[in-house]
Amino acid sequence: MSLKIGVIGTGAIGQEHIARLNGKLAGSSVVAVNDINSENAQAVAARLCPSAKVHATGQDLVNSPDVDAVLVTSWGPSHEEFVLAAIEAGKPVFCEKPLATTAEACLRIVEAEIASGRHLVQVGFMRRYDAGYRLLKEVVTSGQIGDPLMLHCAHRNPSVPAHYVGDMGITDTFIHEIDVLRWLVDDDYVSAQVIQGKRSRHALNGLDDPYIVVLKTKSGVVIDTEIFVNCQFGYDIQCQIVGEDGTANLPEPATVPMRKNQMAGQSIMMDWKLRFIDSYDVELQEWVQATLQGKVTGPTAWDGYFAAVTSDACVEAKRTGQIVAINTDARPDFYR
Amino acid sequence: MSLKIGVIGTGAIGQEHIARLNGKLAGSSVVAVNDINSENAQAVAARLCPSAKVHATGQDLVNSPDVDAVLVTSWGPSHEEFVLAAIEAGKPVFCEKPLATTAEACLRIVEAEIASGRHLVQVGFMRRYDAGYRLLKEVVTSGQIGDPLMLHCAHRNPSVPAHYVGDMGITDTFIHEIDVLRWLVDDDYVSAQVIQGKRSRHALNGLDDPYIVVLKTKSGVVIDTEIFVNCQFGYDIQCQIVGEDGTANLPEPATVPMRKNQMAGQSIMMDWKLRFIDSYDVELQEWVQATLQGKVTGPTAWDGYFAAVTSDACVEAKRTGQIVAINTDARPDFYR
Amino acid sequence: MSLKIGVIGTGAIGQEHIARLNGKLAGSSVVAVNDINSENAQAVAARLCPSAKVHATGQDLVNSPDVDAVLVTSWGPSHEEFVLAAIEAGKPVFCEKPLATTAEACLRIVEAEIASGRHLVQVGFMRRYDAGYRLLKEVVTSGQIGDPLMLHCAHRNPSVPAHYVGDMGITDTFIHEIDVLRWLVDDDYVSAQVIQGKRSRHALNGLDDPYIVVLKTKSGVVIDTEIFVNCQFGYDIQCQIVGEDGTANLPEPATVPMRKNQMAGQSIMMDWKLRFIDSYDVELQEWVQATLQGKVTGPTAWDGYFAAVTSDACVEAKRTGQIVAINTDARPDFYR
Amino acid sequence: MSLKIGVIGTGAIGQEHIARLNGKLAGSSVVAVNDINSENAQAVAARLCPSAKVHATGQDLVNSPDVDAVLVTSWGPSHEEFVLAAIEAGKPVFCEKPLATTAEACLRIVEAEIASGRHLVQVGFMRRYDAGYRLLKEVVTSGQIGDPLMLHCAHRNPSVPAHYVGDMGITDTFIHEIDVLRWLVDDDYVSAQVIQGKRSRHALNGLDDPYIVVLKTKSGVVIDTEIFVNCQFGYDIQCQIVGEDGTANLPEPATVPMRKNQMAGQSIMMDWKLRFIDSYDVELQEWVQATLQGKVTGPTAWDGYFAAVTSDACVEAKRTGQIVAINTDARPDFYR
Repeated sequence: MSLKIGVIGTGAIGQEHIARLNGKLAGSSVVAVNDINSENAQAVAARLCPSAKVHATGQDLVNSPDVDAVLVTSWGPSHEEFVLAAIEAGKPVFCEKPLATTAEACLRIVEAEIASGRHLVQVGFMRRYDAGYRLLKEVVTSGQIGDPLMLHCAHRNPSVPAHYVGDMGITDTFIHEIDVLRWLVDDDYVSAQVIQGKRSRHALNGLDDPYIVVLKTKSGVVIDTEIFVNCQFGYDIQCQIVGEDGTANLPEPATVPMRKNQMAGQSIMMDWKLRFIDSYDVELQEWVQATLQGKVTGPTAWDGYFAAVTSDACVEAKRTGQIVAINTDARPDFYR
Repeated sequence: MSLKIGVIGTGAIGQEHIARLNGKLAGSSVVAVNDINSENAQAVAARLCPSAKVHATGQDLVNSPDVDAVLVTSWGPSHEEFVLAAIEAGKPVFCEKPLATTAEACLRIVEAEIASGRHLVQVGFMRRYDAGYRLLKEVVTSGQIGDPLMLHCAHRNPSVPAHYVGDMGITDTFIHEIDVLRWLVDDDYVSAQVIQGKRSRHALNGLDDPYIVVLKTKSGVVIDTEIFVNCQFGYDIQCQIVGEDGTANLPEPATVPMRKNQMAGQSIMMDWKLRFIDSYDVELQEWVQATLQGKVTGPTAWDGYFAAVTSDACVEAKRTGQIVAINTDARPDFYR
Repeated sequence: MSLKIGVIGTGAIGQEHIARLNGKLAGSSVVAVNDINSENAQAVAARLCPSAKVHATGQDLVNSPDVDAVLVTSWGPSHEEFVLAAIEAGKPVFCEKPLATTAEACLRIVEAEIASGRHLVQVGFMRRYDAGYRLLKEVVTSGQIGDPLMLHCAHRNPSVPAHYVGDMGITDTFIHEIDVLRWLVDDDYVSAQVIQGKRSRHALNGLDDPYIVVLKTKSGVVIDTEIFVNCQFGYDIQCQIVGEDGTANLPEPATVPMRKNQMAGQSIMMDWKLRFIDSYDVELQEWVQATLQGKVTGPTAWDGYFAAVTSDACVEAKRTGQIVAINTDARPDFYR
Repeated sequence: MSLKIGVIGTGAIGQEHIARLNGKLAGSSVVAVNDINSENAQAVAARLCPSAKVHATGQDLVNSPDVDAVLVTSWGPSHEEFVLAAIEAGKPVFCEKPLATTAEACLRIVEAEIASGRHLVQVGFMRRYDAGYRLLKEVVTSGQIGDPLMLHCAHRNPSVPAHYVGDMGITDTFIHEIDVLRWLVDDDYVSAQVIQGKRSRHALNGLDDPYIVVLKTKSGVVIDTEIFVNCQFGYDIQCQIVGEDGTANLPEPATVPMRKNQMAGQSIMMDWKLRFIDSYDVELQEWVQATLQGKVTGPTAWDGYFAAVTSDACVEAKRTGQIVAINTDARPDFYR
């Protein structure tokens, strides 16, 4: 049994996902594509899924009887429309992050899904599928280090381009931690604070870099994360959980320990795209399997909404220097 | 396009490979099975590949027009027969190690494949597909540590069962290093020596444990490998390459660094079956892809033969305490 | 040439220092002792420095013509009196931490020393003499990681006794970081914040444990330090400096890497007294040498005062949850 | 009580030891010096121990009533004469390695010491005083890893000067392992083999580099040591003990873990003189203390003799490629 997938958005990430779903992974094929740039959609289809139909609009694609499930990898501002269309059509939909560009839009999706009475939406937070985070969650769940009390994390990029400005450290970078850390400690956030570090001379365009975001959870766990996007030395993701009985760290990517040039050590990757590339495969393979079984096992629309609310609070905390409360409605029973 | 595979031998490893080739991996399906125990074959087929035909004999399976390629996972002494049959039938064949139980039998396979004029045989040395060994080979090939001069290796098992006796430390355990290290340094062995260590009190049944095997290559590289199959603490595979300009080590499996109970460290796996489990997926996925393109990209029949000759020399070196020459004919042009 | 030292306070730390200064280290001898408990002083002298004179009062000892320099290891509340007496007598004085029990008392010592016109006072912050912190400071000073922007630190004890209560996490524990981190980044603090973590079930007597102290320096460096005194697993001191071009960590104490019982790792010490024991030797040896040359090269009275002011601010920050300013007068030229 | 020491040989190592014994360490002073180059002796004395008497001959120095104990740091070929003179005079003597330049000469010293009836001689094998080797020996002795079965070691220098030729890899380099490993496993060697590695292009003057020395002990422990004196990357001393229940490694020197330039790692020292410099202090401090108590607690004349016999066997093993027996008389009761 194979899942027939329609892909809306044939840009870079869309093409990568098409290649995964149409050849690399088991149990799926891409039968339909669409892009706002129809020439691009044609070319991508010709190269990666020649038997797929190119639809004139995303709505057409969603409603095509050939399409079992929808993958949304279009421009962020269009996500809401296509996810709502898929819900309307009663079709499973995988939407790359962000679920939508505002918390309100995310909430509309949540409400539509609940109203539909079926679990249909998954959001593309891929870190939950990384082997390292999964090993770490196993350790936490096993109770070996006791209840988590604090987390010390870091998200470091060697550098960012000139168009990386303003609050992107939160909305583009920290957004990954927002989702994966909440999943890791299985708890919701209640407040955010941002502590500005000493500014690096490598930070361009007046970018604030680095800073620390401090999140608190309902049960009292404190999570500090260093955001440093011009750290120069490499792409470096750190996460240490301090529990009542011990600590546990996110494993480093496997690398070859070397001794040369007066140094003993390992290389650090520079390209963030490689760090979690394996988790995309796992993410989509599990999505295909779960979808074939009529289930959603990954990040839900509620998770997408919660991430949006948290991100907004972090942005405000950064702007004001204050501790900002993170308020959402209670989690609907639908998502328990 | 999907590769239709017939599997001879439905024991433990056979079942694992069937599950991979019939659902987990892309581009293949299992259409036929056979086992000397036909009830077992029936049961396995029913469970893992219900649409596959159960053949009365391996020869039947090989010759079935439905079968594009053959996987041999039967009892070692039967390998030669089925591999030769596949060559005779002009069909690609993947044979789990050993290629055959004697060097002479391996040579007969080599000669049959050359006579057939087509590259058909691949041997199941899976370590070449391990992500760690591949990273290590990349480092060597990149020239970062200069020419390899020496290798220090270890193959440690926590313990072995009572039926693990005699020379199995070489024929069952070290055989993996024999293949992967030769591939790693891209050189042939010319001699073997075995140096007996102090015997562990945990070694049962008069087993010699531990000892060191020293191999020399044509270009002069010295490779020492500790074989210690009752080391108690874990399944532990080590490989350090000492080059002219630096050293490089096989990466450790990714694990969660922890601090608890007065210790900072990581757990070591106890079960050897888990250590290289991912490499089976990679091995068979690459074999499927290569086979669909009419190529053999993995360990060849010649590699299987060379491993057998080396293993024989190590067994003699262990028995005699002498440095034993490793003599083979020159590598046929067919395998260059 | 040998420095003749008088020791006030013959308790545990006093006895250890006497043993160092009267036999273990070069260039010094203990010629006089005093303790509020004169029997104890007699007994200690008999055992560790039999030729030393036991004085009836600390003042007598300070004023004895036999005494070149004074070591104050008495009860904290008595420090101010004896340090002031030494300044009055024009004699070099090494005072164990704290310099005095209030910031005001510390300031009186600062003023007395300045008034005396001579550098006489050193405070016993021994971490500056730890080989690891010194290596770390060398790295920072060398510019290899660029300007420090942030520090992530941790001070973890396996457990604390029942009498460890209230603000001792700051006044007894964090006080070490207060001094050594300021020395490490060569900058002064301007504010303190305390972020309460989730409380450990191992925390007795209502102790707040763990929490994070965030200090900011004049130049903008942010320093977060986890204080966790019931971490169970070991005595664990961490310090990571994040610079503009890289990161550098405090070296771990040298331990034997082991593999046993399914673990690869190293033991962590449980006893804090052992962690910095070597630095006491270095500290006192350098003090003896410097004193013989008429210099103070270690932590000054001003450093003792600054630590007291910072500690007070941290205590207030912990109580109020607010960001508390750290205000001192400008550093006097005398201490530049 | 202070030990009055006469030093024969005021070259580089002599000067370092004089500085240690006359100021840095407690409990000793240098009261006499001698060198074959009397001008040098004068100059060194003037600089490092101005109150010491410069003797015309080593024999004079040994026999001077002012001298309690003798330190021999002269040219190797003169060691035998001065050590025998000290024994003759009944004075404790510390002799830098080698004890003498031939096994026969070492044996003459052994016999003279036994004949004297007093323990007087200590040989300068400083690695036994290294904190790392001591921690490693503690682990072995504690039984945590069970009985040692094998040792894997390495002695690597970044490079050697042009005058480093012939068998110096054994006589100058491996000699340190010969002593310290025998002490570590508390066992005697019975045979030696040398396995030539692939020659590095960095090896000058036809030097054999690298190679492996394999020693066996009486109880059956196998010790392989890589000697590689042009390894380029750093001065690197490795020792792993494989025991019945686990493994234990020599700790690495404490260094600052860093992340920079796409690397995570630590620097490796290039200068061998720094690697064990602390152990010289410990060695001489313990020698002074033991000598004041009339004891020899360090490497004995017998250890010096055993090292010489082992070194000779290794040289022969390297020349012949054979396994060479290491034969000594039984250890005299005097040295048990």
